[in-house]
Amino acid sequence: MDVSSLVERALTGERAAIARLLSLVEDGGPDVGTAMKVLYPHTGRAYTVGITGAPGAGKSTLTEKLVGQARGLELTVGVLAIDPSSPFSGGALLGDRVRMQSHATDAEVFIRSMATRGHLGGTSLATPEAVRVLDAVGKDVVIIETVGVGQAEVEITDACDTTLVVVNPGWGDAVQAAKAGLMEIADVFVVNKADRQGARQTVRELHQMLELSDAQWKPDIVSTVATKGEGITELWAAIEKHRAYQEEKGLLQSRRRRRVERELREIVAERFRARVEDETGSLLGELAGQVEARELDPYEAADRLISALS
Amino acid sequence: MDVSSLVERALTGERAAIARLLSLVEDGGPDVGTAMKVLYPHTGRAYTVGITGAPGAGKSTLTEKLVGQARGLELTVGVLAIDPSSPFSGGALLGDRVRMQSHATDAEVFIRSMATRGHLGGTSLATPEAVRVLDAVGKDVVIIETVGVGQAEVEITDACDTTLVVVNPGWGDAVQAAKAGLMEIADVFVVNKADRQGARQTVRELHQMLELSDAQWKPDIVSTVATKGEGITELWAAIEKHRAYQEEKGLLQSRRRRRVERELREIVAERFRARVEDETGSLLGELAGQVEARELDPYEAADRLISALS
Repeated sequence: MDVSSLVERALTGERAAIARLLSLVEDGGPDVGTAMKVLYPHTGRAYTVGITGAPGAGKSTLTEKLVGQARGLELTVGVLAIDPSSPFSGGALLGDRVRMQSHATDAEVFIRSMATRGHLGGTSLATPEAVRVLDAVGKDVVIIETVGVGQAEVEITDACDTTLVVVNPGWGDAVQAAKAGLMEIADVFVVNKADRQGARQTVRELHQMLELSDAQWKPDIVSTVATKGEGITELWAAIEKHRAYQEEKGLLQSRRRRRVERELREIVAERFRARVEDETGSLLGELAGQVEARELDPYEAADRLISALS
Repeated sequence: MDVSSLVERALTGERAAIARLLSLVEDGGPDVGTAMKVLYPHTGRAYTVGITGAPGAGKSTLTEKLVGQARGLELTVGVLAIDPSSPFSGGALLGDRVRMQSHATDAEVFIRSMATRGHLGGTSLATPEAVRVLDAVGKDVVIIETVGVGQAEVEITDACDTTLVVVNPGWGDAVQAAKAGLMEIADVFVVNKADRQGARQTVRELHQMLELSDAQWKPDIVSTVATKGEGITELWAAIEKHRAYQEEKGLLQSRRRRRVERELREIVAERFRARVEDETGSLLGELAGQVEARELDPYEAADRLISALS
């Protein structure tokens, strides 16, 4: 089937077509551009929420509960769980994805794990493109859940309208959040597992750290016990509050526009990265060998690749 | 001062010059290429060890102890602590870096925190280039410590010869490691804080998971209590064992060559990403506006940027 008809079928809501389209985006390659061209006019409606935090913080459960909350409000939902791909993950991740199965029979919910390690451009392109697919097929809300903290999180932040940072009670967790650079990417802080000892202390530490910030928006700090569904209504309200703030101040538009600028730069970079691969294969290997042998420095080698491309 | 003379001074071992060179790499930009050209002939000697794992796993303390171990063997050491940059991190990270001060007066040790969030190319270029600086100025071992798990870790793995993955005792930590895609990037597993309950269980879980792998190299699993210096000799031996294995099988050379190929592709991509920024500034903003208004799809916009570049 050609890409355009795949997109057409996805736009009618056919789940298998949506799944195939997301696989296409995940793999990257020339067809993605074609798909995006057809999809693009249908996008721009979805609100995207990113969820990040250390492994084990309870992001999957929070995501599941937020899906329930959104469905209660009769909103349709897409979920992207961004995982570094792993030969082990098929098994190891199953537990989480199975939990999500409480929504699996709901036609208005589409859940997808995305592996990004194989993608040369990493999450930087695959994520916004996958969001666009779910946006185009009519999801009101797209939730992006990530594993771990680091570069990927920054990229996820770039891809969403409101970013939730999840921490757990415990000495130093707030400090670790700061250490991981999460303070300034958080639009809302979630202290999950708030029935554990130290929850109040963690909330206090976060408040103290946020006081040091001179950012205009002061993130709400919401305590939740996701496994019991506690605090989810409050969390949803905090997301809505952040959304309203951004819309009122005209920040949503500028945030999305910066996102597009970043994406365009990435598409250009990705194009040339792919061209190095496709058009200079043997030259690339040869030059790498010369660089390793110290006959050539990497920048000289890159210049030769660029010449070979033009 | 021009870049070439900065490099010359760094090569004599002048710490201030090394620090400035690393700042140059961190910031990116056209001078980096010049610096790399002069540095390059002096590189190729250092062995690089990457340390990754969740925040709070004890990576900084392990790094400090490994530095001590290497110094005991009269090896010179460079340390790169890769942090997502943060306005808060100056304070929050101080604790860790201060601990490292046990080596701060040792002229044969160079420790540097690197922020990478500002870098358009992320850690993918800044890290190997910083390693190259420390290699060129004569460090025998370069330790790369990272915060968190995710994309950044994968990139760090790409940049080093042996990757240590640090986990802590506790139910599910091994599963979380698998979830975060750490099983197949680990050359050595470190169960740190091994005096805590559940350490043996975690070691057992890791063994079980590794049995599922059909990779040729079976990572050692080393238990440590970094704060007390326990298990560090064993950890060093495991690193040496992995190194010997790679050298014997000719794998080190091929690993490094693949690394160079990846780096060359990244330099080419980065060049074009920078050119979009530098040469098409107003056009970029204009096109992003049209994309946001759904007048243009992102790939069409990227095509126009590429045309404008040629």
